[in-house]
Amino acid sequence: MYKIVLLRHGESTWNQENRFTGWTDVGLTEKGMAEAVAAGQLLKKEGYAFDIAYTSVLRRAIKTLWTVLEEMDRMWIPVQHSWRLNERHYGALQGLNKAETAAKFGDEQVLVWRRAYDTPPPPLAEDDPRLETGNPRYADLPAAQFPRTECLKDTVERFLPYWHETIAPMVKSGKKVIIAAHGNSLRALIKYLDKVSDADIVGLNIPTAQPLVYELDADLKPIRNYYLGDAEAIKAAMQAVANQGKAKA
Amino acid sequence: MYKIVLLRHGESTWNQENRFTGWTDVGLTEKGMAEAVAAGQLLKKEGYAFDIAYTSVLRRAIKTLWTVLEEMDRMWIPVQHSWRLNERHYGALQGLNKAETAAKFGDEQVLVWRRAYDTPPPPLAEDDPRLETGNPRYADLPAAQFPRTECLKDTVERFLPYWHETIAPMVKSGKKVIIAAHGNSLRALIKYLDKVSDADIVGLNIPTAQPLVYELDADLKPIRNYYLGDAEAIKAAMQAVANQGKAKA
Repeated sequence: MYKIVLLRHGESTWNQENRFTGWTDVGLTEKGMAEAVAAGQLLKKEGYAFDIAYTSVLRRAIKTLWTVLEEMDRMWIPVQHSWRLNERHYGALQGLNKAETAAKFGDEQVLVWRRAYDTPPPPLAEDDPRLETGNPRYADLPAAQFPRTECLKDTVERFLPYWHETIAPMVKSGKKVIIAAHGNSLRALIKYLDKVSDADIVGLNIPTAQPLVYELDADLKPIRNYYLGDAEAIKAAMQAVANQGKAKA
Repeated sequence: MYKIVLLRHGESTWNQENRFTGWTDVGLTEKGMAEAVAAGQLLKKEGYAFDIAYTSVLRRAIKTLWTVLEEMDRMWIPVQHSWRLNERHYGALQGLNKAETAAKFGDEQVLVWRRAYDTPPPPLAEDDPRLETGNPRYADLPAAQFPRTECLKDTVERFLPYWHETIAPMVKSGKKVIIAAHGNSLRALIKYLDKVSDADIVGLNIPTAQPLVYELDADLKPIRNYYLGDAEAIKAAMQAVANQGKAKA
């Protein structure tokens, strides 16, 4: 009945450096740009054509989306931005190298911080310069509600109102929708759509810039989902994401 | 009281080839991209920060705008697209080389088609493949109203409703606005704001990707206007635009 496409941004500079990013506004690497171009070309080749796009207020997602839309000749469609589609806020871990953090606290603690459903990392202090309450892109987010850290549960809770109130009605109106976002905001949506358990969502790895199609029925219940593109390449990309939190030898 | 910025797109491939472009959706040249980067850097350096952007549905304006917003770290602001901001439709001249057309019809006829206020070039035939009535970017433009050709008067008439109904109220609400558009849609706005005569508007040349600031009073009447950036460079850029329609030796 309906079809939506979810797209995680291409590789960012901090993916490459293996650092916790969260709401830090880092750009794409050259590889990330090439991934975005490939995603746009694939979507075009497969006959996709979007009427509206949703993305975060972070440049790695926006640039990925813009690049895809340019490849698809859909630069003219409306693009709506919301902090509710941002990556999970990683609190005081933002900026730290994942491997160093793992070496210091152990793989297990890092895996908890990265993937436990309801255990947030340590919060940013009120005077931490990484706390961007004054950034104009968050003008519609009251400072008191501005996250200091988030667990995935928090991300789900701030993402879903946007799905219900903004994106879902647009899908039901028949508009063809693409959501260009982040590993954890997309995980939030997938958890909701597929009713994934708190325990299982931890193991779900979303590869960068691989278009993920959800076919939905009239009530927006999933019928099936699949990645476009080469199955082996997607498997390898998922494994690369899974390995990111491990300490390097 | 208010300040808005008008920006003509950077050099396009058909500017470079000296062809009549109109609604043809050509991209930027490398020089055009560099111009857009420079415009964004200049706006940032001068302390501009936009809340909302308006542009056409044509990629040369959109890409210019995106590039500017990327340089200014404002990729997250709302961008609204309308065909009413498109370049003047050049009718049956679209795609023809300006110098060749001038050599064939004479400088004078070409200057009339380019610059007479109310003389449109010959229209596209109903079966002309250049007539893009079926293009989805024009879904909100009924085929019967789709222009087959336009004189500047026509462009003014289809641009001004968008100014009055959409852009002007946003300016009055205090939002900082940039309009990234085309030589003739910007000429239409300038004609209206500055009450330029039908005869004089012909001689107004807007250089590519040079931010043009209008300071407006509470009633949106112009107080003054000026280009940002180096005055000599702007003068040279204006002269280059003026020379485009002349036959080459």
